[in-house]
Amino acid sequence: MKFVLAPDSFKESMSAAEAAAALERGIRSVFPTAECVRVPMADGGEGTVEAMVTARGGELVVAAVRDARGRPVRASYGYVAAEELAIIEVAAAAGIHLVAAADRDPRTASTFGVGQLITDALDRGARRFVVGLGGSMTNDGGAGMLHALGARLYDSDGHDLADGGAALARLSTIDLEGFDPRARSAAFEIASDVANPLLGPGGATTVFGPQKGADPQAVQELEEALTVFARVLAADSGRSVADLPGAGAAGGLGAAFLACFDARMRRGVEVVMEAALLEQRLSGADFVFTGEGSIDGQTLQGKTPLGVAEAAARGGVPVIAFAGRVGPGAEVLYDQGFTALVPIVHELSDLPHALADGPANLERAAATVCRILALGLSAGAARGAQAGWATGA
Amino acid sequence: MKFVLAPDSFKESMSAAEAAAALERGIRSVFPTAECVRVPMADGGEGTVEAMVTARGGELVVAAVRDARGRPVRASYGYVAAEELAIIEVAAAAGIHLVAAADRDPRTASTFGVGQLITDALDRGARRFVVGLGGSMTNDGGAGMLHALGARLYDSDGHDLADGGAALARLSTIDLEGFDPRARSAAFEIASDVANPLLGPGGATTVFGPQKGADPQAVQELEEALTVFARVLAADSGRSVADLPGAGAAGGLGAAFLACFDARMRRGVEVVMEAALLEQRLSGADFVFTGEGSIDGQTLQGKTPLGVAEAAARGGVPVIAFAGRVGPGAEVLYDQGFTALVPIVHELSDLPHALADGPANLERAAATVCRILALGLSAGAARGAQAGWATGA
Repeated sequence: MKFVLAPDSFKESMSAAEAAAALERGIRSVFPTAECVRVPMADGGEGTVEAMVTARGGELVVAAVRDARGRPVRASYGYVAAEELAIIEVAAAAGIHLVAAADRDPRTASTFGVGQLITDALDRGARRFVVGLGGSMTNDGGAGMLHALGARLYDSDGHDLADGGAALARLSTIDLEGFDPRARSAAFEIASDVANPLLGPGGATTVFGPQKGADPQAVQELEEALTVFARVLAADSGRSVADLPGAGAAGGLGAAFLACFDARMRRGVEVVMEAALLEQRLSGADFVFTGEGSIDGQTLQGKTPLGVAEAAARGGVPVIAFAGRVGPGAEVLYDQGFTALVPIVHELSDLPHALADGPANLERAAATVCRILALGLSAGAARGAQAGWATGA
Repeated sequence: MKFVLAPDSFKESMSAAEAAAALERGIRSVFPTAECVRVPMADGGEGTVEAMVTARGGELVVAAVRDARGRPVRASYGYVAAEELAIIEVAAAAGIHLVAAADRDPRTASTFGVGQLITDALDRGARRFVVGLGGSMTNDGGAGMLHALGARLYDSDGHDLADGGAALARLSTIDLEGFDPRARSAAFEIASDVANPLLGPGGATTVFGPQKGADPQAVQELEEALTVFARVLAADSGRSVADLPGAGAAGGLGAAFLACFDARMRRGVEVVMEAALLEQRLSGADFVFTGEGSIDGQTLQGKTPLGVAEAAARGGVPVIAFAGRVGPGAEVLYDQGFTALVPIVHELSDLPHALADGPANLERAAATVCRILALGLSAGAARGAQAGWATGA
């Protein structure tokens, strides 16, 4: 009997690798000889580097770069030398988690550090990139990244602009003359779970700015600045990308990738599934276990378990999803290929305890599911010959 | 496919009948044509009358009696005329839930109302009794009940004793001359989940007195009074029962039953299972679902799910138990015939919400289990021919 274990991380409780290990412990307590194939997942956000480095046999590289405020930070990314492949999480340099709440200013926050990470990987030999866009602090349209890679951004007086989104209000020209040709020729897969355009009511600033600390005045200021940026970027790159899905991801970083790079936007979970060879590993599997911290109606929006379920459905393998919370609207997932959604909580407790107990609870829940599966398997094997029985007749 | 649904009540959330109905809704959402047999359970405590009246087709009778403090209370009990069978919960008359915390005095609390309920049932024609001992406020050794049924309790001056356990310190004689002969000849099944003796460190007063409001001084006073009672009861009834298991149940009420009645102490769940014809209803069943509010290591102490699991094991039917909380030590139950223990919580919430959501959560959990069962059944049916597969090879 073969189980494929492809969970995402359970946020603030365990990494995807830890979750897969907990699932395996639970399975083995019931089916000691089962084959368990661990394929930790991610959706382009936190855990993407870990999942892909695990899957591809790469290494973690640490680089000294700038964070969103311009301060030094040691950021890690993944590198698979044999494939000349770098895996970068934007959040490692420009992450909101690196900036204390009181210090967050999306008007000055910059993606400069992301460009530094790309340069570091190019120096190492990278010709292919996977970039996960989740968790950024920035709203600069990727201007900082372009700057770090050699582009010059001038105002109408020919002066260099300061870092950050607000300064883009004075942008007149983007000079791509010095833009690193290695960056231009490398192939970028941009893993993003949001399809927002750059501007407007569904755009980067309006939708995500407030989460980054933008008050209504800052939202308006940044929206106007990014409108200027979009016009100049289209003129100077030759590509009009502001309306493309995902251009508004990571504070508009998506737009810079689409305009100035050989970049393809993809659902994060698909990039990771492909890198982790999930489809091949599903071959011959009897059951897939997936999961993440919370599963609800939102899981339909391209989150990891849905991607795993779609892949499993293509292979005809049933999927059971585990979650710390199975929230309202989750039932719709039963139409999307999930056989069962299993909450892992065993009793009421407070959130810190529930997070700390996550691995143990997941292990117990996996064991309980296996006990029920075993009951069904033996009953089905014994009585399967009786037509219609397994369907409740 | 046949399911037997034999849950206890989920305390403060839903009755056993409501729990059985929720389980059936969950099952039918997955197996629309399954046969569902509802057999609501109880363990001699709250819900025993409801479960048994449901099972035997009896009626609820209301009688005006005294509560533990001597105040009037309308108490209900069950009556099955065709079987001359009365089902009484001691707590209906002498329950701790009827007395506000500030008014609780186990020194004066009396079981007089329990005797009144028995008299009412005898007048109605009862010849058989089931008495559930859970939830009493009293610590009077059953003296009040004996008094209500015609016994006289005298001090050494020949004066009648006052009600309550503390007065028994002055007990000299129990005159059973006027004790109702119908009570003496009726058959009593005493449903109790505690096996404590009447006296000593494991006895009624020391173990349960503090829960009823006895401070250390009251515990000592009542222990001495019940010691006198035990000596006089043995002398005047001709039976020495103080050391028998269950004599200390319900503040020593068990001792009065054992000494003065044709009484048999039994585990509450066994009495209810027998009355509800659980074993017969298990015939041909494929799965038993049981459950209660909380399942943990304590469930080994004769609680409802264990009794159901034992009965199911005798019939070779696998058992899945659901609980609002699956607590520490619950794993030992896997050695007692349980196939799976399933927590019904779907996300963290506060207790009032969890209690209010109980029926919906139980329904969802039953549906989830059925989805997993169905997966196992079809996989097992399809592949059962491959020897060893269902055991994980």
